Amino acid sequence: MNGLFITFEGPEGAGKTTVLQEIKNILTAEGLQVTATREPGGIDIAEQIREVILNEKNTLMDPKTEALLYAAARRQHLIEKVKPALEQGHVVLCDRFIDSSLAYQGYARGLGIDEVLSINEFAIGDMMPHVTVYFSIDPKEGLKRIHANGSREKNRLDLEKLSFHSKVQEGYQELMKRFPKRFHPIDASQSKDLVVQDVLKVINEALKKIQL
Amino acid sequence: MNGLFITFEGPEGAGKTTVLQEIKNILTAEGLQVTATREPGGIDIAEQIREVILNEKNTLMDPKTEALLYAAARRQHLIEKVKPALEQGHVVLCDRFIDSSLAYQGYARGLGIDEVLSINEFAIGDMMPHVTVYFSIDPKEGLKRIHANGSREKNRLDLEKLSFHSKVQEGYQELMKRFPKRFHPIDASQSKDLVVQDVLKVINEALKKIQL
Repeated sequence: MNGLFITFEGPEGAGKTTVLQEIKNILTAEGLQVTATREPGGIDIAEQIREVILNEKNTLMDPKTEALLYAAARRQHLIEKVKPALEQGHVVLCDRFIDSSLAYQGYARGLGIDEVLSINEFAIGDMMPHVTVYFSIDPKEGLKRIHANGSREKNRLDLEKLSFHSKVQEGYQELMKRFPKRFHPIDASQSKDLVVQDVLKVINEALKKIQL
Repeated sequence: MNGLFITFEGPEGAGKTTVLQEIKNILTAEGLQVTATREPGGIDIAEQIREVILNEKNTLMDPKTEALLYAAARRQHLIEKVKPALEQGHVVLCDRFIDSSLAYQGYARGLGIDEVLSINEFAIGDMMPHVTVYFSIDPKEGLKRIHANGSREKNRLDLEKLSFHSKVQEGYQELMKRFPKRFHPIDASQSKDLVVQDVLKVINEALKKIQL
C-alpha cells in the first residue's frame, strides 16, 4: 500500500463523523489526496448485504450470521474503494472499521474478540489500518450528546441502554491493550477544535513516517 | 446433538441428490425421522443472502466476499433448520455443506483450505457433520453425466471446464486426508442401487454407535 489508511473508532456520540469531515478538509487544503468513507460506502454489493442485515423482517438472524455479513460487506468496500484509493497514494479516512466489529459484536455482544477477529482477518487480509484514532469519551456523555442532537438520526445502537455502551467501551479498552501501536486514544470530551488538533497531531506523526 | 448429521459431498454429476432422496425414503420407511435438506433450504435469510451471491449484476464480487456470504447463509440454515431437527433426534441428510466450500473455494479457487475452514468453523461452531459420504467419481464421467441429462438445469459450476472439476476432486482428496474419520468415500461410478447400498452401510454403521 502506498497511501495511509486511518480509521476512526469510538462509541456513538463521540464526534467521529464531524471531526473526520474537518480533517478531510484540512488535509485536502494542505494538498493531500484524501478519501473519506464509511462502510458500506456506496458500494453496490456492500449496500445489498447491508439491506439483508438491516431488513426489519429478519428477526431470526443469528448474531454469527450478522457478523459474517458485516465482514462480507467490509471486504467488498475494502476491495472496491479503500484499496484503490490507497494504491493511488491517498490518505483514507474511514469512519469505523474492523475494531467496531470487535468491540460491538466480539466483546459487547459476547461472540468473542478472537472469533470475530478471525473472520475479519480473512476479510481484510494484510490491509489492517496503519493508524486507528480512538475517540475516548464517557459512555454517559456520548449518550447525552446523541439525545441533545435532535437533527441526528438515531439508530438502533444509539437507543441501547447505558450498560451496553459501557460494554462497548470496555471492548475498546481491551483492543487498545491488544493493538497498542495502532491505537491512538484522544480525549473526545474536549471542544471540537481541540479534538481536531489532537487527531491532526496523530496523522502528521504517521505522515512523517511515510512518503505519499 | 441428539440426532445424526450426515452430509453428502462430491463433484457435480456424482448422483448425490438422487441418492439422497432414495436414502431418505428408505430410512423413513424404517421408522426413522429424517430431514433432507440442502443450503439455503428455504430459510428466508439464507435465500436473501443467496440472491446477493447469484445476482448477475454483481460482477465485481470478490471471492472472499462470496466465501463469507456462503458461510453466513450456512450459519442461518444450520441454526434455523439443521440444529432444531438434530435436537428432535432426526437423521439430517444435507446435500453439500462445509466441505463444498473447502473443496471449491478453498482449494479449486485458491483461497486456501485453512482460510475458508476458519470462517466456516466460526459459522458452524461445534456442529461439524458426524459423517460425510463422499461420492467419488472421475470428473470426466461426472461431466458426461451432467451433459447427458437434458432435464437437469445446468448451473455455472457445471459448465466450468474439466481442469476446474479436476481441481475440485484434488481438493476433496486433500479433505479426505484431513478428516479420515469423518469422510466415507463410496464409488459413485457404480449403478445407483449399489451406490444406495453403500451409503446405507455407512449410515447404518453410524446409527449403531448412537441411540436416536
